[in-house]
Amino acid sequence: MDLEQIRKEAKKFFVNTKGSHDWEHTERVYALCLRIGKKEKANLEVLKLSALLHDIGRKEETKSRGKVCHAEKGAVLAKSILEKYELDGELIEQIVQCISTHRFRGGKIPQLKEAKILFDADKLDSIGAIGVGRVFLFAGEIGAKLYNKDFNVENSQLYSKEDTAYREYMFKLRNIKRRMFTAEGKRIAKERHQFIVTFFARLKKEAKGIL
Amino acid sequence: MDLEQIRKEAKKFFVNTKGSHDWEHTERVYALCLRIGKKEKANLEVLKLSALLHDIGRKEETKSRGKVCHAEKGAVLAKSILEKYELDGELIEQIVQCISTHRFRGGKIPQLKEAKILFDADKLDSIGAIGVGRVFLFAGEIGAKLYNKDFNVENSQLYSKEDTAYREYMFKLRNIKRRMFTAEGKRIAKERHQFIVTFFARLKKEAKGIL
Repeated sequence: MDLEQIRKEAKKFFVNTKGSHDWEHTERVYALCLRIGKKEKANLEVLKLSALLHDIGRKEETKSRGKVCHAEKGAVLAKSILEKYELDGELIEQIVQCISTHRFRGGKIPQLKEAKILFDADKLDSIGAIGVGRVFLFAGEIGAKLYNKDFNVENSQLYSKEDTAYREYMFKLRNIKRRMFTAEGKRIAKERHQFIVTFFARLKKEAKGIL
Repeated sequence: MDLEQIRKEAKKFFVNTKGSHDWEHTERVYALCLRIGKKEKANLEVLKLSALLHDIGRKEETKSRGKVCHAEKGAVLAKSILEKYELDGELIEQIVQCISTHRFRGGKIPQLKEAKILFDADKLDSIGAIGVGRVFLFAGEIGAKLYNKDFNVENSQLYSKEDTAYREYMFKLRNIKRRMFTAEGKRIAKERHQFIVTFFARLKKEAKGIL
């Protein structure tokens, strides 16, 4: 299989992408997919290629200000790449499915075992210490505040400059644990979830000067 | 004393400042100064005003790309503000001293008890959960990566786009504990230090997909 060649092709889609959604995210998802995939006895060929290609539609989503769905776009782009390598048609179909159902906010639910693993691995990269780093890095990228203790999270917009990190934690990150599909995903999520709960509880106290 | 009036004047210097060094940082330093100041039986009047005014020179430093020292500039700006309020000359002198010696990288060493407390409080805001949030927020602001496991931190430049958060941890944040002057500062630093050590150890492992 032309894995290294496809890795190179995938990487090209990440030139000048911001740190919160850069190529290193793909590499981390790849590593987690392998780890979970081995435990879950998944098809590692499908999984490796799905992981490498899962976010190649991201730039189009950003450029279109969210009108294009990066999972759908990524599936289309992946298909045209994979077809060049004369891979088995069913293999390509499975990879396309994995990519098109990996989105947290998407309506499509992962059906294949490999699709569930990709979903889990991708979401696990939003929690734990990595998740904390990413959410503040993203806040910095859009010019948001660190933490605004007077900000009403309940009545707020997505990606507000007044507070993005804590808001993301409240509405997205702390729900990820419950969204896992695989047993190994659930196990990893449990620990990473506990870490972000501790982190944000500490942040709130430190912000008031009481810790 | 015209504390609220001076707070308003200080806050004006933070219009459109970025989240890693914004007015909320000053408010957190203020809260920590009060907490440490009470324990250390410091002059709270000196301390409150020093805390509110300590970073008002920050914009000039940023604008000059580091040529102007924000501690020195802040001391000058603070003096001209305080003189309007007909405060006691010695009180003003003490506040000016506190502000001019609060910088981590500066050559001036805090001599007054209140100056030591301001130094400690300001540095404590760079560690713990707040410190983690700030270092990634700053990385996002300058367009840096989240964490680059292949980056050679030892031979790197300050504020590299390749990795700023972990580099800052290695060279600055993990040394802050040893720089504390006051007993209460040391106590708070110990706990916050432990937290960042745990955080970055975890980050490294998660980045490899092994945690």
